[in-house]
Amino acid sequence: MSNFGFSRLRVVNPYKLAFREARSAVGASEVLAAAEEYRSVAEAVADCTLVVGTTAVRNRDLQHPLERLEYAVPLIRKRLRSSRVALLFGSEKFGLSNQDFSHCHWLLNIPTSKQNISMNLGQAVAVCLYGLVRDARAPRQSEKQSLATAGEDERVTTILLDAMYASGYLQRKPTSDAEERMRRLVRRLKLPARDMPAWLGILRQILWKLRRLEEDASR
Amino acid sequence: MSNFGFSRLRVVNPYKLAFREARSAVGASEVLAAAEEYRSVAEAVADCTLVVGTTAVRNRDLQHPLERLEYAVPLIRKRLRSSRVALLFGSEKFGLSNQDFSHCHWLLNIPTSKQNISMNLGQAVAVCLYGLVRDARAPRQSEKQSLATAGEDERVTTILLDAMYASGYLQRKPTSDAEERMRRLVRRLKLPARDMPAWLGILRQILWKLRRLEEDASR
Repeated sequence: MSNFGFSRLRVVNPYKLAFREARSAVGASEVLAAAEEYRSVAEAVADCTLVVGTTAVRNRDLQHPLERLEYAVPLIRKRLRSSRVALLFGSEKFGLSNQDFSHCHWLLNIPTSKQNISMNLGQAVAVCLYGLVRDARAPRQSEKQSLATAGEDERVTTILLDAMYASGYLQRKPTSDAEERMRRLVRRLKLPARDMPAWLGILRQILWKLRRLEEDASR
Repeated sequence: MSNFGFSRLRVVNPYKLAFREARSAVGASEVLAAAEEYRSVAEAVADCTLVVGTTAVRNRDLQHPLERLEYAVPLIRKRLRSSRVALLFGSEKFGLSNQDFSHCHWLLNIPTSKQNISMNLGQAVAVCLYGLVRDARAPRQSEKQSLATAGEDERVTTILLDAMYASGYLQRKPTSDAEERMRRLVRRLKLPARDMPAWLGILRQILWKLRRLEEDASR
């Protein structure tokens, strides 16, 4: 809940001892410390204008409309603009009962694999709340990585050709054929602009060393 | 993972004892039982063409492009059509190290509240995998609830007016003013088609009882 900025946790008939211990524990989250305790679902949702139950069941003949999370989100968001909405989760072991469902306007289902429809409670809550805060139109966090200029690519191509000749990979001075092939190979690398100083430095050093060793050898 | 239909869990350097015990435990999930163990991130992701790291950190100067989950999903899905993608999660306590990050093509971030950016590992995995399987264009699970016909609404209106007169709420036979007001009240209820037999039955019974008690009283 706190990961996604939700703060009002209401607990119906919790196992008293465990609940009291959890909320008074050192390091208990603000959400847990501020949790409100109720004796019935009716009291817990009394000030909400929309009560949405959550269920893993998809085939049972439910008496309620059932919406998958993707469809439920815009409906819940719309209502949240003007009033309170309750998202009702059952216990880890049994989920919500039919009596709990009768307090709900409709039910929400997380689209899971048929092989395993029963989710861990904490994970189900996280997925539902992420669904509510996700924003496909939020600004991107990172700029698209900008690419090296054609001039920089050409410098890399030239140094590589020189190094190929100096190392003996090419037997004679680079031909225009070899040049073209190398130019295509380098363009396909899509070198990032920010990495160009590093690549140029590395390649220049290798070329310099090759030539120096060659000179030493031919002395 | 099994909730969302993902089956290939690869574990790098797990705490051996805990891992062996967990996977051989009675009731261990298929995913866990089939988990593959690796000694390094490099080996674990060797057959993937895209490696995406996950991180809660948003402000540190990361050396990698960082995409929020909403943007990461289409990129990952696209790559999954042709090859394997690794989604890399760090340990619950420390997350991924810079060395782990160096195996990643880019990083993914779940959009969390600034007050609490650090997610529980299982919940982070669930949210990422839900993000990958969510489908805003999937068919709706439930039909939109169909509403009562105008004729049915009118029958309810008539019975209610009769009951209001019979109960003394209206002092004289319903006027056209009262009729119009009641008609508006009933239309605004947006009674569901499926509930009409119940409502008509309940109201007819109440009206019948009111009239019978009235008759008895006036004898």
